[in-house]
Amino acid sequence: MTNLHPVHLVGGGPGDPELLTLKALRVLREATVVLVDDLVGEGVLAFAFDGAAARPRLVHVGKRGGCASTSQEFIEKLMVREALAGEKVVRLKGGDPLVFGRAGEEIAALRAAGLEAVVVNGITSGLGAAATLGIGWTDRRVGSAGVLLVTGHTREESEGQDWDAIGRVAATGVTLVVYMGIAQIRSIVERLLQVLPAELPAAVVQHVGSERERSARATLGGLVDVVASHGFGSPAILLIGRVTQEARVVAGFQAEPRYITS
Amino acid sequence: MTNLHPVHLVGGGPGDPELLTLKALRVLREATVVLVDDLVGEGVLAFAFDGAAARPRLVHVGKRGGCASTSQEFIEKLMVREALAGEKVVRLKGGDPLVFGRAGEEIAALRAAGLEAVVVNGITSGLGAAATLGIGWTDRRVGSAGVLLVTGHTREESEGQDWDAIGRVAATGVTLVVYMGIAQIRSIVERLLQVLPAELPAAVVQHVGSERERSARATLGGLVDVVASHGFGSPAILLIGRVTQEARVVAGFQAEPRYITS
Repeated sequence: MTNLHPVHLVGGGPGDPELLTLKALRVLREATVVLVDDLVGEGVLAFAFDGAAARPRLVHVGKRGGCASTSQEFIEKLMVREALAGEKVVRLKGGDPLVFGRAGEEIAALRAAGLEAVVVNGITSGLGAAATLGIGWTDRRVGSAGVLLVTGHTREESEGQDWDAIGRVAATGVTLVVYMGIAQIRSIVERLLQVLPAELPAAVVQHVGSERERSARATLGGLVDVVASHGFGSPAILLIGRVTQEARVVAGFQAEPRYITS
Repeated sequence: MTNLHPVHLVGGGPGDPELLTLKALRVLREATVVLVDDLVGEGVLAFAFDGAAARPRLVHVGKRGGCASTSQEFIEKLMVREALAGEKVVRLKGGDPLVFGRAGEEIAALRAAGLEAVVVNGITSGLGAAATLGIGWTDRRVGSAGVLLVTGHTREESEGQDWDAIGRVAATGVTLVVYMGIAQIRSIVERLLQVLPAELPAAVVQHVGSERERSARATLGGLVDVVASHGFGSPAILLIGRVTQEARVVAGFQAEPRYITS
């Protein structure tokens, strides 16, 4: 085991390659095998290996899209097999691997195989979305003393998601950030409206940090219509709470955003 | 206004200079004035300007420690004044400026002065703490379908913090991450124990990402004693929830941590 390398779980950030950390870039460039997730920004890999002396073997192991996807079990086996063969393995995910990224399961699989797991954080997409909008996750001026991150994805982490409890904590002023919430937005909003006022400000950001980035403001009551009428799809971040009332909506991602509407 | 520069609110990350983003490093090196927060890691500034052609004017505007502190109003005035004088101003904060960082207030002050604010995200300390411990913020294996970030600081964002509501959402399986919670830990834990079981796993990480980093595991019921007996002080992150049951405790920060106890 002494000549085996630790496996790095690396966050690729929300999409803008410049939001990679220095450590992520170093670890990617030292890797010999990189298992790449679906949600990794298109520009991130190109940027990381542009001009690099050696390019690692890239294995795309995205899980989006149902039948054609790679199972979590297969990904873990592959990661273990490559590391036990002496490869320098990086598991590259969009955002931060510790936020709805199954890092816990992957770390457990690595440890069970006698391998070491090292996490390299990335900017989680919900924070990238707030940066785009020019708002804090929290803001004491509007009584927002905390932030709750939840996933709207129904088949994975959100099984048994308690939207009533989520709505009640948001009612105390806590900002709500919903990852992967577009597919189920109608039922999510319907359940939140049982507890939260329809006029609560909200915002949506699609393709955070990529050239295709789009955003819009709404109220909770109007969020489903705004998403539908603008044709917002996945991946997107929903932000719900009074912090979003000062959000600026941006036309397309730019390295230095210019706000066009208030 | 056309020859004025946008003011950048930049996240310096939890402490490890290698967790700076490429964009943060670029913006820091282009700055002529940097307003530096208390919680910025000691190594971050040294790293950012080591070998740089020109070093910006550094103004330390930390607010820690009561009477000798710089008021938020003064910081905002200074930021506006320097930017209106044509300086390239960076407001550098520890972690991410959008998480308990008063970014909303500062962005509003900049906009009121006709200035543009641009946010450059950083790794928030609560994620750095989880990386140290080798655990996810969320983990479907233990029914953790979300994460709630709150501050324990009593005089700022947490005025009116509703610990009962926080405890109730944590009781649904949501992980709790408490920033700035050490000073008030006794009352925070007492109030959480009204709603949450004493045997709920918990962990604490002090000085995340710095050479002085220390961490420990506990239960919610034993957390106050562990913090007291190990002499943990601020700044520290508390993590409460079943995800912490697999936390590995590390002896001191290392670029590539080696876990010494399980």
